[in-house]
Amino acid sequence: RTNSARLWDSLMEMAKIGPGVAGGNNRQTLTDEDAEGRALFQDWCTAAGLTMGVDRMGTMFATRPGTDPEALPVYIGSHLDTQPTGGKFDGVLGVLAGLEVIRSMNDLGIRTRHPIVLTNWANEEGARFAPAMLASGVFAGEIDLDYAYARKDPEGKSYGAELERIGWKGDEEVGARKMHAYYEYHIEQGPILEAENKTIGVVTHVQGLWWLEFTLTGKAAHTGSTPMAMRVNAGLAMARIFEMVEEVTMAAQPDAVGGVGQVTFSPNSRNVLPETVVFTVDIRTVDQAKLDHMRAEIETRAEEICAALGVTCAIEAVGHFDPVTFAPELVETVRAAAEKLGYSHRDIVSGAGHDACWAAKLAPTTMIFCPCVDGLSHNEAEEISPEWAAAGADVLLHAALETAEI
Amino acid sequence: RTNSARLWDSLMEMAKIGPGVAGGNNRQTLTDEDAEGRALFQDWCTAAGLTMGVDRMGTMFATRPGTDPEALPVYIGSHLDTQPTGGKFDGVLGVLAGLEVIRSMNDLGIRTRHPIVLTNWANEEGARFAPAMLASGVFAGEIDLDYAYARKDPEGKSYGAELERIGWKGDEEVGARKMHAYYEYHIEQGPILEAENKTIGVVTHVQGLWWLEFTLTGKAAHTGSTPMAMRVNAGLAMARIFEMVEEVTMAAQPDAVGGVGQVTFSPNSRNVLPETVVFTVDIRTVDQAKLDHMRAEIETRAEEICAALGVTCAIEAVGHFDPVTFAPELVETVRAAAEKLGYSHRDIVSGAGHDACWAAKLAPTTMIFCPCVDGLSHNEAEEISPEWAAAGADVLLHAALETAEI
Ligand SMILES: NC(=O)NCCC(=O)O
Ligand SMILES: NC(=O)NCCC(=O)O
Repeated sequence: RTNSARLWDSLMEMAKIGPGVAGGNNRQTLTDEDAEGRALFQDWCTAAGLTMGVDRMGTMFATRPGTDPEALPVYIGSHLDTQPTGGKFDGVLGVLAGLEVIRSMNDLGIRTRHPIVLTNWANEEGARFAPAMLASGVFAGEIDLDYAYARKDPEGKSYGAELERIGWKGDEEVGARKMHAYYEYHIEQGPILEAENKTIGVVTHVQGLWWLEFTLTGKAAHTGSTPMAMRVNAGLAMARIFEMVEEVTMAAQPDAVGGVGQVTFSPNSRNVLPETVVFTVDIRTVDQAKLDHMRAEIETRAEEICAALGVTCAIEAVGHFDPVTFAPELVETVRAAAEKLGYSHRDIVSGAGHDACWAAKLAPTTMIFCPCVDGLSHNEAEEISPEWAAAGADVLLHAALETAEI
Repeated sequence: RTNSARLWDSLMEMAKIGPGVAGGNNRQTLTDEDAEGRALFQDWCTAAGLTMGVDRMGTMFATRPGTDPEALPVYIGSHLDTQPTGGKFDGVLGVLAGLEVIRSMNDLGIRTRHPIVLTNWANEEGARFAPAMLASGVFAGEIDLDYAYARKDPEGKSYGAELERIGWKGDEEVGARKMHAYYEYHIEQGPILEAENKTIGVVTHVQGLWWLEFTLTGKAAHTGSTPMAMRVNAGLAMARIFEMVEEVTMAAQPDAVGGVGQVTFSPNSRNVLPETVVFTVDIRTVDQAKLDHMRAEIETRAEEICAALGVTCAIEAVGHFDPVTFAPELVETVRAAAEKLGYSHRDIVSGAGHDACWAAKLAPTTMIFCPCVDGLSHNEAEEISPEWAAAGADVLLHAALETAEI
């Protein structure tokens, strides 16, 4: 078993960097806080005897050598970046539990045939630079490096420039590494494990996703002196699209979600109807045909809604991945480890996207989930217990040892 | 008649200060650009022989003495501040046509019994500091000075601090001045005069207004892993409120408007359902009972909508004035002046609020409207013709002379 107190201490230590306003964290990608978090992680890796490599997207790879020089590494990890009002565990748990797994192997003097590489993927959240899972997407050859560098934050700063600024642009070619397997441990970010009183989620699939960014163009006009019949009201079109997305999503139940987290009105003045309204619809389901159907229906109906109001509608897909089915042999390894360790478990579908979605394109991959209180995530109040955290770390240790071969 | 070329030159000169991004202006209240516009206006007033007074809200009063030391002044004017993406004429026309009226009187050697005071009211737009017509509201005793000073812009800077910073906090007690009458010349900001090919709007009434600021509190949660049934979706509640405001407004036709210009999602991240959504509903009509009914219905139905979604709803009135009926004798003076000068005219209700609404509480007041192209205002593309501008200035000259007595 891993050292649960040491894991919890490390989680709390990392949470001191980029504190939020309500007990959580704001350590967004490529900010000064991100740089500080990376430096602390690097120190810990060095102390654990690992060798650090950094690729040109800023992803960090810390290697513990194996005994067989020919064997490809087993990768474990997740991400250290957070949402603007994020929790202390989303992503961080997977990286620091991976560190704890290595520290425990060191303590126990365990050597593995395959090297183990502990990974901190850059820009998993996608809050500052869309899309999410950007660096792992480039690593998997699914996203172009130049496209990734050109992604802009709301202030217009680019990924490439900010990566240089914080000093974490490495020299490794992105995706040059080969993987034997990838395990990612993460909080569930949903309510199922806690509700069913299970300690371990054995993740079998991940929902596919579309992020559809709408730009509605109406006509900026005075809210007082512009008669109703003369309005080209982009805000009203947006409201109707929100309601329609809700309808399409409810018609796709069970196992589909849809909603909007980001809205920008311009000029955003109380007595001016907006000239433009920009927002992103997030739809997800594990069923590929259903996902494509939802997207098509939302786009068609949005265009009808806008046409009826004279509003111009442009839709750009700013994030996408297909539903993922994880490698059955690794899923079985996780299930067996939980069983052997005596932890209650259940199979589960991931509602959120993870770097594991892209890693699954390259090598056998799966995930382990930790319960979280009230299913809350992407919220500073996100919470887990030290016992839950340690249980998943134990499962990760055993699964990694099984695949890396003692 | 006034000098139409000189008026147009002054308008174009002022428009150089705080240029917008699309041919209009961004000279918001108490910004450096506002200060620069004020300084230019002051220079022009000095050159025209006027004496400047500034009150503690930053409103500027430039006096042309009358021949009777006992006679109260006739006030003319409007405002020089603009929307963030405003036009070149909204407000500015009334101030600079007032200046042109005085310059013409000087040219013609006309003396009046009553003094004439040319006024630049501070913070008419309310875009940076809600509510609109803030300084005239304090002047009329309808808004408390301390409340006004404490109003904050979106960055948290207060009206009082910004007024000091730009150096335009005067020493006159706000509202100490007494008025014989007030005339305000302004662009219509609506489509009626142009559509009916009338050069002069004789303004008889102004719509009353409520600005209702909604703060909806939902639950920040992951858009991917939070099942539909677990969401407390403040964004969806907002959408339903928008649609309901549209319904309530359409049911109140004709002669009622309702809409939303300003929305803020927090944390505003693509994969986080909002914790809070803040927006302002703007409703107006000239019928007092209808206005009160609209407000009551919107508030009741918004609370029902939110309750059904588990969303908390707080509503604060951040702007309000009752419908206004202007002084019949002044309205008749304007109508007669247009008639005498041979300008086509019609009676009209103002859709927008104006400082004249508050002045009407203090003295006989009315307004003169200038057509504007496509009824467009609060838009950088706002446009009028030099002939239209001059016609209203002529009417203002004759009406002011009539009331100020030669
Ligand atoms: N796990 C997680 O929150 N990833 C961010 C991408 C997503 O929205 O699913
Ligand atoms: N005239 C004008 O645009 N005033 C601003 C206040 C309002 O929204 O009516």
